[in-house]
Amino acid sequence: MAETYDVLGIGNAIVDVLSRTDDAFLEAQKLNKSSMQLIDADRAEALYGAMGPGIEISGGSAANTIAGLASFGAASAFIGMVKADQLGRVFHHDIIALGVDYTTPARADGEPTARCLILVTPDGERTMNTFLGASQTLGPDDVDESQIARANIVYLEGYLFDPAPAKEAFYKAARLAHKHGGRVALTLSDSFCVDRHREEFRVLVSDEVDILFANEAEIISLYEVASFEEACAKVRTDCPLAVLTRSAEGAVILSGGTASEVPAKKVDALVDTTGAGDLFAAGFMFGLSQDRPLEDCARLGAMAAAEVIGHMGARPEVSLIEQAKKDGLV
Amino acid sequence: MAETYDVLGIGNAIVDVLSRTDDAFLEAQKLNKSSMQLIDADRAEALYGAMGPGIEISGGSAANTIAGLASFGAASAFIGMVKADQLGRVFHHDIIALGVDYTTPARADGEPTARCLILVTPDGERTMNTFLGASQTLGPDDVDESQIARANIVYLEGYLFDPAPAKEAFYKAARLAHKHGGRVALTLSDSFCVDRHREEFRVLVSDEVDILFANEAEIISLYEVASFEEACAKVRTDCPLAVLTRSAEGAVILSGGTASEVPAKKVDALVDTTGAGDLFAAGFMFGLSQDRPLEDCARLGAMAAAEVIGHMGARPEVSLIEQAKKDGLV
Repeated sequence: MAETYDVLGIGNAIVDVLSRTDDAFLEAQKLNKSSMQLIDADRAEALYGAMGPGIEISGGSAANTIAGLASFGAASAFIGMVKADQLGRVFHHDIIALGVDYTTPARADGEPTARCLILVTPDGERTMNTFLGASQTLGPDDVDESQIARANIVYLEGYLFDPAPAKEAFYKAARLAHKHGGRVALTLSDSFCVDRHREEFRVLVSDEVDILFANEAEIISLYEVASFEEACAKVRTDCPLAVLTRSAEGAVILSGGTASEVPAKKVDALVDTTGAGDLFAAGFMFGLSQDRPLEDCARLGAMAAAEVIGHMGARPEVSLIEQAKKDGLV
Repeated sequence: MAETYDVLGIGNAIVDVLSRTDDAFLEAQKLNKSSMQLIDADRAEALYGAMGPGIEISGGSAANTIAGLASFGAASAFIGMVKADQLGRVFHHDIIALGVDYTTPARADGEPTARCLILVTPDGERTMNTFLGASQTLGPDDVDESQIARANIVYLEGYLFDPAPAKEAFYKAARLAHKHGGRVALTLSDSFCVDRHREEFRVLVSDEVDILFANEAEIISLYEVASFEEACAKVRTDCPLAVLTRSAEGAVILSGGTASEVPAKKVDALVDTTGAGDLFAAGFMFGLSQDRPLEDCARLGAMAAAEVIGHMGARPEVSLIEQAKKDGLV
């Protein structure tokens, strides 16, 4: 166990089930392309039955970010809930195998480990359908003050606002992080997630968040404005550091009075966008942990995002620190 | 359910857990590189704990072949045993999603669904460690005569000789296939598997097998000879049709008095050899189902093998019939 964590993440503990499909299937199933929607057990069963063969890879937004940080060699920890079932064992194995401190005790009873049915279309876009299962039982008792106290950054995913007890855990972790001198980072996760929790997110961003990660659709949805530029103007006054990603158009970093733009890293073949935002956040926060200038942090984020969209699944397939060395970023 | 099956496969029903590693890890774990070894539950737990993050993909040798046949559009069925647990559900979903008839009822109790811990080294070689679990409870009662009667080819994996009840199921299926005018195909599976069951395999090949699939190491091991050429001379007298694969050197087809050689299909990047032999058999038997000349069958096999070694996992990622059309093979 590390003395201090560069980043401690809290999020839904999910195993992804990825399957290639086409747009016609998304339409037939009435799915919102490129978004994340929550589904119940019956819907999960029906959709799984209708979709093609899958591959199972550990996922979860904040968990992917923490896996990415571990791949950079950062000291990291994760809090999230699985059940003690086969998929829970998979999730647990995959994250501790990276050297992440993950000690949340698995639930012995109740709903199974969360899974996300991810449909990947030929354009590389992913459409996510999440059955939260055991993950939604994460609560404030699962957040340990002594562990939070050791984190330089506590990273929280917006998706935690969907299950009520997890939201309580979220607020507790944010409060404890500040009490112990840590920073609070938040990703807005998904524009529909922002729709569901807009008012609370606005207060949170304004009052609690030190580092905000969002993509263009999410930040526009947060402030209900017409353009990215207007959203930038709003978030500047709300949050000391905002990291806004715009897919192939790169990222905009707003810090105090300054703004900088960093281009996306070119990829040979876009295979699956699952985890692009999660890995951007990983690279960025790794840069922060190394006290790199913000533009360098964004370049590390762009590199990690480029790695993950080049293959199926949201966890890096190569050592990100080795890739960063190859790219001359560290 | 199809009226007749081009191929019905019987094999171990396994979910693969694939993880990238290096040769040092194989040595530290005392593993026979590129082979398959059987492991018990304790060893599976220990090895899983020691290995890196994984991805889960349905596997099983004959099951991979049947999945490949379905991807070619052949009418196919599979018999193999899982438990009614999460990994069993994954296996079941992935094979029926391809249109395969798979109706073996999952065990409600007993050991969990089989898994194979597959370590993939940077050279693309796979080293497999199989915990058979529920799969080894497959027995003769799971082989239904009316279903076997509808199969033009009954395809059996040599790995079925490891669990005793599965071996009985194997013999029953072979006997019934011949009773109903079908052909019996066998893959020798693995040279260590041949070591374990050499005498029985020799009798089987000589007395029961109409189509034999083997790689160079397996056929040499079967006859305990010094060279591939000697093995070819032996198998010619034993079996009406032998399909012998030699990795990058292509395949040799021995049928009656004739021998033909077909080169391997070049691959851009060898990622993971898992399933190469299984998919070669799929393409070859698809060709047989279409009454193609044997050399064309081997070309279809080489194409399917090339697809599967270009990515992680032993199931095709693209439609093999579409790929065959692109390659001008159908």
